[in-house]
Amino acid sequence: MLVAVLDFWFEFASTYSYPAAMRIGALAGANGVEIRWRPFLLGPIFKAQGWETSPFNVYPAKGRYMWRDLERLCADLGLPFRPGPGHFPQGSLLASRVALVGFEDGWGEEFSRAVYRAEFGEGKQIDDPAVITELIRALGHSPETVFARAQSASIKDRLRAQSAQAQQLGIFGAPSFITADGEIFWGNDRLEQALAWAKRIAV
Amino acid sequence: MLVAVLDFWFEFASTYSYPAAMRIGALAGANGVEIRWRPFLLGPIFKAQGWETSPFNVYPAKGRYMWRDLERLCADLGLPFRPGPGHFPQGSLLASRVALVGFEDGWGEEFSRAVYRAEFGEGKQIDDPAVITELIRALGHSPETVFARAQSASIKDRLRAQSAQAQQLGIFGAPSFITADGEIFWGNDRLEQALAWAKRIAV
Repeated sequence: MLVAVLDFWFEFASTYSYPAAMRIGALAGANGVEIRWRPFLLGPIFKAQGWETSPFNVYPAKGRYMWRDLERLCADLGLPFRPGPGHFPQGSLLASRVALVGFEDGWGEEFSRAVYRAEFGEGKQIDDPAVITELIRALGHSPETVFARAQSASIKDRLRAQSAQAQQLGIFGAPSFITADGEIFWGNDRLEQALAWAKRIAV
Repeated sequence: MLVAVLDFWFEFASTYSYPAAMRIGALAGANGVEIRWRPFLLGPIFKAQGWETSPFNVYPAKGRYMWRDLERLCADLGLPFRPGPGHFPQGSLLASRVALVGFEDGWGEEFSRAVYRAEFGEGKQIDDPAVITELIRALGHSPETVFARAQSASIKDRLRAQSAQAQQLGIFGAPSFITADGEIFWGNDRLEQALAWAKRIAV
């Protein structure tokens, strides 16, 4: 029997990645599926589609709906929901690089959840280095050391490569889940279906 | 106690309206919610967003994903899935007008399901009058009489007014469900949540 695995492609600027990131750990555990967390940047993919910003800004009716839908989802899930008054989408470059350091060291998942909670549950700006500093410190790590590694060529290259890979895989939005046989499932709504697929093909 | 009602806004060209139309009857019955079927045209709304065709054509990666996702959904639901080799999206004007006649006479739901089944389950072109003729006949009605009414000024005006109303309500895609207190739920994935909301506010 193979181990069931599922790649979880997420973007820190993505609103629907928030509930997915908060739900995936427990659901994967209950289903015996190993999750591989894959932070990536959607910006280059959106640009290739002709968007200079989030489609939720490009299409205001869709944007208004998304915020209300997310609010209802968070209420159903018991997740805090308080988007900040600042710009949307937030720059996710720093958080993504720090997350890659965290995944090397085993605290990437916890950090990723903390980023989402700060961003959409506490109205903080995750493109503010002071906010990320606070999150790293709260996990018991040294912000100075982590930031130095996050700015290294190896981490920068990895994030660039991972984002290019996402595009090659056919990813066009976040979150996306990809099974070992290459099935793409797009959106928080598809998490359960993706886990079931991952489980089924591993038998 | 109020009667729980939910407005079901659907477009015959819309792929995800297919599973929604096939599921909504049984789910609404089980939940004691009265559904008001509201066919409308998405074309004018897409045009206002700057799209001359479906976003699934505008963004090919999203389009490829949608067809595969719909195929998986139909498999899970036990619905036939066989999109035709012809153009997408299909013209939905004739089917929408005939549906309005059907809703006046009490066979609108059955006709709507038959249109979706023909279109996405049997690969037929619903903008071919011969296909619609066949569907009307199979329901035991006279295509000649129905077509004459479908082309009347009153039916044409009603469809135009209903489509304008959809846009005014903030609808930007199909299917959309709207509760009596004005909550919009977009997409087949939100049907259960919309029904729960409709039920809750009716108590």
